[in-house]
Amino acid sequence: MPLPHLTRAAAPLTREVSAVNEHGEQDTVSIPAERALTVYVDKRELVTLMTLGAHPELLVLGYLRNQRLVESVDEIQSITVDWEVGAAAVRTHAGIDRIEERTAHRVVTTGCGQGSVFGGLMEEIDSLELPGTAVTQAQLYAVVNAIRLQESTYKSAGSVHGCALFSVRDDQAAMLVFVEDVGRHNAIDTIAGWMWMNAGGDVAHPDKLFYTTGRLTSEMVIKSAQMGVPVVVSRSGITQMGHEVAQRIGLCTVGRATNRRFLCYTAPQRLLLQPALAGPRLRATEVSP
Amino acid sequence: MPLPHLTRAAAPLTREVSAVNEHGEQDTVSIPAERALTVYVDKRELVTLMTLGAHPELLVLGYLRNQRLVESVDEIQSITVDWEVGAAAVRTHAGIDRIEERTAHRVVTTGCGQGSVFGGLMEEIDSLELPGTAVTQAQLYAVVNAIRLQESTYKSAGSVHGCALFSVRDDQAAMLVFVEDVGRHNAIDTIAGWMWMNAGGDVAHPDKLFYTTGRLTSEMVIKSAQMGVPVVVSRSGITQMGHEVAQRIGLCTVGRATNRRFLCYTAPQRLLLQPALAGPRLRATEVSP
Repeated sequence: MPLPHLTRAAAPLTREVSAVNEHGEQDTVSIPAERALTVYVDKRELVTLMTLGAHPELLVLGYLRNQRLVESVDEIQSITVDWEVGAAAVRTHAGIDRIEERTAHRVVTTGCGQGSVFGGLMEEIDSLELPGTAVTQAQLYAVVNAIRLQESTYKSAGSVHGCALFSVRDDQAAMLVFVEDVGRHNAIDTIAGWMWMNAGGDVAHPDKLFYTTGRLTSEMVIKSAQMGVPVVVSRSGITQMGHEVAQRIGLCTVGRATNRRFLCYTAPQRLLLQPALAGPRLRATEVSP
Repeated sequence: MPLPHLTRAAAPLTREVSAVNEHGEQDTVSIPAERALTVYVDKRELVTLMTLGAHPELLVLGYLRNQRLVESVDEIQSITVDWEVGAAAVRTHAGIDRIEERTAHRVVTTGCGQGSVFGGLMEEIDSLELPGTAVTQAQLYAVVNAIRLQESTYKSAGSVHGCALFSVRDDQAAMLVFVEDVGRHNAIDTIAGWMWMNAGGDVAHPDKLFYTTGRLTSEMVIKSAQMGVPVVVSRSGITQMGHEVAQRIGLCTVGRATNRRFLCYTAPQRLLLQPALAGPRLRATEVSP
């Protein structure tokens, strides 16, 4: 079965606005774009997503995947995005079964969440088997450093979340894809879409690690597990539900990862510690809050 | 009409978990609690909110208010929260009209958003008249300083958003209420609930300012305007939709507010600049990114 046909609708990621600073001076600053994209599945309106607009087709594909509305990329014939009308038209080969019923149950999740079929997802999670991937402290530092060096809309305009998928093998950490969006659920959904479109070769290898600038929420942990990625790293902290879900399924969560510091909250057996790489301990007074 | 009867269900706001740090040491760290609270209106299930759990009754009240499901606090007879079963039972005096239809349209908003009746909200926004409140640079600095000094779950456990309502009058800035939650939409909804329960006297005065740790999204701007608060301050930046909506309705947005620095993005006529208070300019190399 051929991959779905996707348009490549592009739109500017930032716009300039004027602002007044604390010295009373007029400044021109960049802010991230934010667009409404209404998704139609076989001509039926499904949802409106607010997005930066970098990869709208992959976002829609990943949204359908992570909401469990399609089970395989083969079900999609095409996704056509037209920014003129702010619409993404999804065409399926055979329609989506019981779509009305399956999108009826709403849960407002914590972290930039959307109404997801949460109860259903948790049941599915328990039946998932995560690969036995482990990551070394050196690889973890390589991930944090790669993110630091990444050119990004965040650097130029702020106010977006970033997500990246890494391959961690042979003591290396290679960034496969980096996505930003105004909502972090969009960024991870876009990566899910990308993984479906690039499912051969390297992506299939069970050596994956996920990086997110956002908090380690249950939603992030669940989506990562669904995509078969057993290690999630963040510069932020973890929420209680994120912690509970990660512990239950043995997914390794690493938070507060900046420079050489981090905290591994769950599944530490997946993290091969190399404390010598951490450098000298800071004195208590030097520890940032 | 008497105010609704609210229970005062309390639950611990943090829990301790163990984590492994970069030196390979086991640490005990606090993380914010996160609870599922299913809202029933007159015994009919409405939505499940994920919350820190500090003020569940005010959260539910403000959620109903900000979703425009109730028009006046008088419509509510009682809100009873029972953490044993994770439920909030809302009893109304006369039912909510067309509740099924009014909760059917879903939009996934950018910032920790929930499916809100977004189109409808925008129409309403255009008919709102914001009070002529202005704020001085000194008051703005007082707001930022009050937030800095506030004891918080964020300081002890991280990973939560904070919101505060200030009264800005006679060159003073007084914090009326400070709320944190795992999702910032919850924090602002809780303040909306608090405002309804404390609608007399000071709260009615049109001298209000809103502070949020989160980004200045359209959702934040719209909710603030609905609550009659014409100035919103954040330590984060602004999104494009937040910028557009704020500009359209003349709401003053101030972002990147830390220490003595800030950027006023919209309605600068509401900000009485006192550049002498800003202190000396930093040289370009000292400016943080």
